[in-house]
Amino acid sequence: MGTVVVGYVPTPEGRAALDRAVAEARLRSARLVVINSNRGGRDLDAEDSIRSEADLAAIRDSLGAAGVQHEVRQLVRGMDPAEDLLSAAEESAADLIVIGLRRRTPVGKLILGSNAQEVLLRATCPVLAVKTDTRPEPGER
Amino acid sequence: MGTVVVGYVPTPEGRAALDRAVAEARLRSARLVVINSNRGGRDLDAEDSIRSEADLAAIRDSLGAAGVQHEVRQLVRGMDPAEDLLSAAEESAADLIVIGLRRRTPVGKLILGSNAQEVLLRATCPVLAVKTDTRPEPGER
Repeated sequence: MGTVVVGYVPTPEGRAALDRAVAEARLRSARLVVINSNRGGRDLDAEDSIRSEADLAAIRDSLGAAGVQHEVRQLVRGMDPAEDLLSAAEESAADLIVIGLRRRTPVGKLILGSNAQEVLLRATCPVLAVKTDTRPEPGER
Repeated sequence: MGTVVVGYVPTPEGRAALDRAVAEARLRSARLVVINSNRGGRDLDAEDSIRSEADLAAIRDSLGAAGVQHEVRQLVRGMDPAEDLLSAAEESAADLIVIGLRRRTPVGKLILGSNAQEVLLRATCPVLAVKTDTRPEPGER
């Protein structure tokens, strides 16, 4: 049985990546490993942590309902999300990694974040990059 | 019927992208559009052009043998490969774009080329990025 690994964060991009990863896992009859990674420490206060826990519980429920064999890992190890995702992919001999790409600049210009670049370049399997709003902004090419 | 669009160049990365795109098209029962794009002009001499033609003919044969519904387009329009790939994907309402990533620097360090970045950021559908040698070089992380 193959494995699809997805990097999940509670944002529209994270949701888009997760939705697509579920579809890919079903298509391939693969299991799905969901990695929710954050550095912890000052970036994560108690309220965030509770919200995150509830969010991941909801994801577990919906994956169960979708009939996809899955595993949800919340990692707070002080590592970059890219490191956590890549090590999970290596460990599970993933066939596919799914990541969300997000808008980064205040003016809405799309750029590739450093985590996305790290995953794209260092992954030992193909990487599927998913966006949410895929239409260009007015003024963007 | 869905459509998978792949950017093909006659390099190991291009081959890896094509192989994966064929597998994805079969998995999805989709048709495959192969885009071989170059700027033409001084970048392309007569010998290259003949080699390229023979290469594409071989690809057509192997896609036919694989039983994948396909279309091979050789584009010499003076446009960036990213532009050609994105416009083909738009035009065919592609469900997936497959691209190869290649090593770029003389010392073997992996970086994302500008065409890959363009496609990743501007595509209106998910993009699958494929590498050939996915093991890090000695000295690379």
